Amino acid sequence: MKTLKIIKIGGNIIDDSQALGSFLSEFSKLEGSKVLVHGGGKLATQLAHKMNVPVKMNEGRRITDSDTLDIITMVYAGKINKNIVAQLQVNDCNAIGFSGADGNTIVSEKRPTQPIDYGFVGDVKQVNTKTLEVLLNHNITPVFCAITHDENGQLLNTNADTIASELAIGFAKHYKTELYYCFEKNGVLKDINDDDSVVENINTKTYQNLINEGIIADGMLPKLNNCFYAINNDVNKVCIGKPSMLFETNSLYTTIEK
Amino acid sequence: MKTLKIIKIGGNIIDDSQALGSFLSEFSKLEGSKVLVHGGGKLATQLAHKMNVPVKMNEGRRITDSDTLDIITMVYAGKINKNIVAQLQVNDCNAIGFSGADGNTIVSEKRPTQPIDYGFVGDVKQVNTKTLEVLLNHNITPVFCAITHDENGQLLNTNADTIASELAIGFAKHYKTELYYCFEKNGVLKDINDDDSVVENINTKTYQNLINEGIIADGMLPKLNNCFYAINNDVNKVCIGKPSMLFETNSLYTTIEK
Repeated sequence: MKTLKIIKIGGNIIDDSQALGSFLSEFSKLEGSKVLVHGGGKLATQLAHKMNVPVKMNEGRRITDSDTLDIITMVYAGKINKNIVAQLQVNDCNAIGFSGADGNTIVSEKRPTQPIDYGFVGDVKQVNTKTLEVLLNHNITPVFCAITHDENGQLLNTNADTIASELAIGFAKHYKTELYYCFEKNGVLKDINDDDSVVENINTKTYQNLINEGIIADGMLPKLNNCFYAINNDVNKVCIGKPSMLFETNSLYTTIEK
Repeated sequence: MKTLKIIKIGGNIIDDSQALGSFLSEFSKLEGSKVLVHGGGKLATQLAHKMNVPVKMNEGRRITDSDTLDIITMVYAGKINKNIVAQLQVNDCNAIGFSGADGNTIVSEKRPTQPIDYGFVGDVKQVNTKTLEVLLNHNITPVFCAITHDENGQLLNTNADTIASELAIGFAKHYKTELYYCFEKNGVLKDINDDDSVVENINTKTYQNLINEGIIADGMLPKLNNCFYAINNDVNKVCIGKPSMLFETNSLYTTIEK
């Protein structure tokens, strides 16, 4: 089986045009098939403020009313996605931007309104990789924003980490898939103030210990849950760290194991 | 050679959600390969007003500064394009949204700043249909918004009628291409107040007469120029009229001939 890298980048890269430019240049040089998944960064919130649309969050997750859905569709699928694609073309990486509606690649269902009504937020139900595999075979790199659809015409805001793990799982039937979550730290840290204190490997057993010790908490919990979800569903390799984990041989990062 | 229909829809359909819905339902039923090109309608201007970005036009063409480029990228490639794609999926038409940057399909160059500086507006330089043909062969319908790129990372606002004609010409090597411009009238009208007074055929010679008589003027001139540009560059069939020209056998429309 061929190897496929699924790489997710978040707001810390997207909000910094220089960091984004250098990431995309390095990303373009990666050999083999690859898929990029990007989050939204601060742009959606900035646009909401400009448009006087109230920003409502619950535990770091955006509550997505109809106006907010329009905003994230414009920002994620429009401005961010198309600018990333245009920059990849500069680096001779032939890319096509995707939402889950494009090619019917990611089908989700609107999250139940209890206990919290998140509005137009979707939980992934099905991933269709056939069209994407055709493109990968033609050396084209899909670039996903964090928007899915419900097959009834409704776009839905979907967590970008989840999109990355679901894509990795979806591709695992036909590829040896590797999932990389890029963020602002070198991985899971024993001491949050020491970027060298990386926990290099975490498995199901040590994960529970790290939670009990309070080393993994807050925003890291859903991220790690996505990692374990992937590694327990036929994804071959799951790593968290800075983008350098992809480009430099001696960089520190956390590998998730079964 | 297989037949390929390139269909362009404009603001009159995009701004009317009911008309858009019924158009997309009929479009989905069209047999054979097809490409949809959509304009922007009034949404970009509405968003510019909300964001306090001045709207500057010259002879009906948008002067596109950096803020305006962001707005049209968000509206055309984001909100409009993704909602059209999601609605086509409802109708079992498997679609993928494109800007010219996606798949490096439409390369343009920034228009010279003399005599008028239109800002980030691009004139089409090259169309690459290879990736699109792969998708068409897999029964996938590309949906183009009116944004291109210059291969140096710059997105550029590009006239949607021009994108449609350039795509039709680009595909003409490998397909028998048919280009349909849908707008609010039944075609070129002898009497602008009588929607039945359609000029059914126009060729290069009668075109000049219609201009001299003042029957073709203003906004119809660039549209007709795009039509003749296409028919004189190996496009097999070029028509202007209401969308019904595609779906109903007895509807009136104007056919452009060499």
